[in-house]
Amino acid sequence: MPRRAFVRLYGFGVSALLVAVGLVMMGGVLASGQVAGPRPLHGMPLPRSVEMASGELALNQFNYAVMGQHDARLDEAIHRFVWRLDRQCGGIRRSMTMPMASVPELTIHVAGPGQAVQNIDEDESYKLDVRLGAAELTAPTDVGAMHGLETFLQLIEVKDGACRLPAVTIDDAPRFPWRGFMLDVSRHFEPIDVVERTLDGMAVAKLNVFHWHLSDDQGFRAESKKFPKFTEVASDGLFYTQDQMREVVAYARARGIRVVPEFDMPGHTTSWLLAYPEIGAGEDIKVLPQTFGIPQAELDPSNEKTYKFLDEFIGEMSEIFPDAYFHIGGDETAGKGWLANPRIAEFMKKKGFTTPAQLQNYFNTRLLPILAKHGKKMMGWDELLNPELPKDIVVQSWRGADSLAAGAGQGYVGLLSAPYYLDAQKTAAEMFLADPIPADTKLNAEEQKRILGGEVCMWGEQINPETVDSRVWPRTMAIAERFWSPQSDRDVADMYRRLLPASLELEDVGLTHIIGPKRLRRNLAGNAQPDALDVLASVIEPVSFSERYNAQHTDRLTSLDRLIDAVVADPPARQQIEHQVDQALNENSPAEREAARMALRQRFSAWVQAAPQVLALTASTSRLDDEETRARQLGELGATGLEALAFLQAHEKPSEGWLDDRRKTLADAEQASGMVRFVCIPALRRLVEAAGAH
Amino acid sequence: MPRRAFVRLYGFGVSALLVAVGLVMMGGVLASGQVAGPRPLHGMPLPRSVEMASGELALNQFNYAVMGQHDARLDEAIHRFVWRLDRQCGGIRRSMTMPMASVPELTIHVAGPGQAVQNIDEDESYKLDVRLGAAELTAPTDVGAMHGLETFLQLIEVKDGACRLPAVTIDDAPRFPWRGFMLDVSRHFEPIDVVERTLDGMAVAKLNVFHWHLSDDQGFRAESKKFPKFTEVASDGLFYTQDQMREVVAYARARGIRVVPEFDMPGHTTSWLLAYPEIGAGEDIKVLPQTFGIPQAELDPSNEKTYKFLDEFIGEMSEIFPDAYFHIGGDETAGKGWLANPRIAEFMKKKGFTTPAQLQNYFNTRLLPILAKHGKKMMGWDELLNPELPKDIVVQSWRGADSLAAGAGQGYVGLLSAPYYLDAQKTAAEMFLADPIPADTKLNAEEQKRILGGEVCMWGEQINPETVDSRVWPRTMAIAERFWSPQSDRDVADMYRRLLPASLELEDVGLTHIIGPKRLRRNLAGNAQPDALDVLASVIEPVSFSERYNAQHTDRLTSLDRLIDAVVADPPARQQIEHQVDQALNENSPAEREAARMALRQRFSAWVQAAPQVLALTASTSRLDDEETRARQLGELGATGLEALAFLQAHEKPSEGWLDDRRKTLADAEQASGMVRFVCIPALRRLVEAAGAH
Repeated sequence: MPRRAFVRLYGFGVSALLVAVGLVMMGGVLASGQVAGPRPLHGMPLPRSVEMASGELALNQFNYAVMGQHDARLDEAIHRFVWRLDRQCGGIRRSMTMPMASVPELTIHVAGPGQAVQNIDEDESYKLDVRLGAAELTAPTDVGAMHGLETFLQLIEVKDGACRLPAVTIDDAPRFPWRGFMLDVSRHFEPIDVVERTLDGMAVAKLNVFHWHLSDDQGFRAESKKFPKFTEVASDGLFYTQDQMREVVAYARARGIRVVPEFDMPGHTTSWLLAYPEIGAGEDIKVLPQTFGIPQAELDPSNEKTYKFLDEFIGEMSEIFPDAYFHIGGDETAGKGWLANPRIAEFMKKKGFTTPAQLQNYFNTRLLPILAKHGKKMMGWDELLNPELPKDIVVQSWRGADSLAAGAGQGYVGLLSAPYYLDAQKTAAEMFLADPIPADTKLNAEEQKRILGGEVCMWGEQINPETVDSRVWPRTMAIAERFWSPQSDRDVADMYRRLLPASLELEDVGLTHIIGPKRLRRNLAGNAQPDALDVLASVIEPVSFSERYNAQHTDRLTSLDRLIDAVVADPPARQQIEHQVDQALNENSPAEREAARMALRQRFSAWVQAAPQVLALTASTSRLDDEETRARQLGELGATGLEALAFLQAHEKPSEGWLDDRRKTLADAEQASGMVRFVCIPALRRLVEAAGAH
Repeated sequence: MPRRAFVRLYGFGVSALLVAVGLVMMGGVLASGQVAGPRPLHGMPLPRSVEMASGELALNQFNYAVMGQHDARLDEAIHRFVWRLDRQCGGIRRSMTMPMASVPELTIHVAGPGQAVQNIDEDESYKLDVRLGAAELTAPTDVGAMHGLETFLQLIEVKDGACRLPAVTIDDAPRFPWRGFMLDVSRHFEPIDVVERTLDGMAVAKLNVFHWHLSDDQGFRAESKKFPKFTEVASDGLFYTQDQMREVVAYARARGIRVVPEFDMPGHTTSWLLAYPEIGAGEDIKVLPQTFGIPQAELDPSNEKTYKFLDEFIGEMSEIFPDAYFHIGGDETAGKGWLANPRIAEFMKKKGFTTPAQLQNYFNTRLLPILAKHGKKMMGWDELLNPELPKDIVVQSWRGADSLAAGAGQGYVGLLSAPYYLDAQKTAAEMFLADPIPADTKLNAEEQKRILGGEVCMWGEQINPETVDSRVWPRTMAIAERFWSPQSDRDVADMYRRLLPASLELEDVGLTHIIGPKRLRRNLAGNAQPDALDVLASVIEPVSFSERYNAQHTDRLTSLDRLIDAVVADPPARQQIEHQVDQALNENSPAEREAARMALRQRFSAWVQAAPQVLALTASTSRLDDEETRARQLGELGATGLEALAFLQAHEKPSEGWLDDRRKTLADAEQASGMVRFVCIPALRRLVEAAGAH
């Protein structure tokens, strides 16, 4: 990517922050005399306040000191930090065995370890001062200190072969206390190593709640010793043992992350009822459903056995999951089974309930004392909202910001998820700009406090262990910044500039969102060098969950092995091409313009070259059957771009016929096909129209 | 790779086998009338006998049946097999829910589950008959059946978008009963997921012994409840819990793999003596050694406490590791500590021992009854060989085939490891050709039976979890073929032809030998598209362990983050360039000659283009400091190739000056530099000399 593209004069998108938090830049940087200005800083999420200073901290050697009481988890976090530092800079671990400088390069002051069970009021703030020769990290808790360590790593610049940090003062704390990530492991199971690397990524992104969607119609994934049939008959053998769940809780805590389990009820419980039909409304379940969609089976709220069962089950799970919150799901309960069951109909009549929603609310009110008995607060999806429930339940909104604001207006505590459904395949920018509390909110300050933050949601219908990372990352990092950083942080270009290195960092901690799709493409291409397929993949993205569903009727038997599974969401090429077209049409800077045109010519030529090779591949495997159209279009789009550039270059106006043809080419390529879509159409359209307007 | 390169008329290198096992090809194939002849079959290791038939088995749908008594592990293996089949062919799992054809596509007959604890006499044979419409797999044991499933997967061809298997009869059994892979987890720890994916790869390669080198000077990696200090003070916190070790044993058994633990003694025990100095010879150990090399600390064979300790420890480990063999190491015991200890010197004098080797042999004889008490046979390295030890111990030869043959001549049972040290960085071909029983062996049939097979050895000094796969795979697959397939299977070109798809298959089961180095190169290049570095990496390979050691004095603080860590061993480009030069100089086929010259021109041009980009990269990070020379040479080699091709093309004789210059270029590029070496020098030399001889 051309460096000037996203260069900002001051790191961390400070221009926005200057307004937002009233910082004044120190003169040292402005007066530094560097021709190109200071290098823009990387780092996500953007800290609350960044103040540049003069000088730098060279990491030719490294030692650290930790002052203050803390848990072993901070020592372990520092251990991992040192390895990552060593990986970035080399020689760090060796230098730690050598005589120390008078002052260690990094001193960490923590006031205390933080809460024994992390809660929503944990103080996650930190201050990081980097000065010539030494840095100080100060935090009230282990969690704050761990966040500061992530920021320290992001500040590193490798320049002339040496590692250094710019002098800077960072004063940081999250905007929202609840910054969650939900993983559905019911529709497709995700093994423990996927969960753990997800937690590693969350730590980099400073997310702090892992919401584990452990049961749904298609499978029950948590071992219960009291109710062993959950996993014996309703998991296909794919589940977490209690030891594994405890391991995940510990792994998360070690990274400043809470674990909130979700057991969805009273709907989405087909798997429950396969195992324990006695607490159901009478539906006779024979097998786990293969298809997805809203289920027809529910727990029976009219049966006292149900509550006795849930009391025992929630009690057992509460010993594994220490978090204060317990997610009971509660979404999409159609209640058809209830209405069809005479005994339940009679019960509803007796209670004066005329709708299933009323019966569900009754169920929820019965659950409250059970949860309270086991020390838990209730959490659930929008459907929970009901005046009869107390105000300290947490409502997770899949319906949207308006529903959330309405709840907050009524006194409910909530968090936003609707805009952050990863399987909608929206761009990082779109999700980044969606705010749990938009700038134009009508909520007053007190009401705003009831909005705790948000949660990214990764539903499991169309992912598996091989593809989950490329759906989650790096887009989740952009949302994490929304949850952490000031409301005023809305500079999309700067976000994308920082997302690229953040994405690489995420792979360095073990995620596979770049190499995973590459391996799948190689598998698709049937050879070791799927270069042509890579060229196509670089400019396409997956269609949304529902578009794929409509195209393929995805169910649990669908092999996730098509091109859609082997491409990344919101690929960087979109930004790159948009920018290159900007530059190619920029008449103010001929040198940049020519460079951009050259780069575009190379790119378009690569498309033209790759197209027939991809076409040949589509004939070799039925898994690429749907991609003939895209392969052909890739060549046509490349030719279109080359022609438009040629007209621009020659200052020659194309014929109306050409313009019509090429508009049609672009419109064609915008149509649905092969469950993937091109990300370069708007930029190409600008190029074509510019050529036409010449 | 041009298809003609490695095309053989009949699959599985049958031309060699025709001689070896006297097979006759059936007429159907020869008469098939296909223009290019039948497609060569893939698959490694090569089966003992392959007989082609006419027809094929289409996999438009799939169902299977299992007949005969077997363990749940076979059902699980079939489950994994179905997922892999589904991944290769698509729609397999869905088709299994549909009405079955009259005969399932695959019927598996097993006579029984096999031994409760797999031993060296387990029958691993299988027969696989693929016919029009149906296949039958017959095996005496689960293990044989699992091997047959691997072969079934390897037979699949995707043609015109459909999956099919050629009709074939395979009658297969291993040549050697002991086909091992040793992993050293002491020098660098390898987490459980690395161990498990290694076992997955071993199952594909039909290897059957995982030799787990669990302790050495630099760390003790196995939890002992009786001796907790082993891991508390001598593991840096990196070790396997007993549950994890049991999990590995179960994971291995489920794949037909035995697990032989090694606890190296009485030397290589610095970690033991840091934890339990009371059983040492008096050396005062303060920390785990950071450096590698032959240690100076040993257990004390003169102390009865030592044997009491080992009795307890071996008893505890024997409950975790059910295998009949227990590896006691026994290598490189210099005995300096013994000689320096007056008490031990006195003991030796009393016993009439004049050398440490005699004392070690005493130690071994004392261990024998302890092992026997816990149901174990002794296994160890060459140094064990001693007339006083019984003949049923297994001697693992790191000294070589002669030492092994000498032992066999004396009646000892042994296996070969010397040629299979992966860190020597030899080519797959070289290791493939090294035979535990060479064709010219002087051993008689009975003596030959004493050679059980061999073991691939992956020592841990210069690997970590990120790099281990690229050191192990795919070369280990070539050695696995040596251990499994007939002695006559020595066709290197055909081995490499089959190694490429085998390598991709290994990544499909979860190994990272291709994508891992790619990720490391991206990290080295500091951006997402390290194309230029990829070009350099494609034609270089790591130097050997000792060359690297001499260049870098590798120790436990050395970051394994240089280019050497980011390139694969024996890259495919070596074979490809050799072949392209063959073709480019082949005057008999002008069309092929021109195509090869064109391909070489593209390749050399890519080198020329990449060279300045790599040079620029070397300035950006100290981790590439050593590679300036290689970057420059890449460009020079590319130019050399282009010039040679130009002379050949123009039928023009180059000047003596050019020839001298270019010979010097090649000689320069052959010199040690940057801990990597070019794999293309011999081929380029042939090209240059051919141009010169014009």
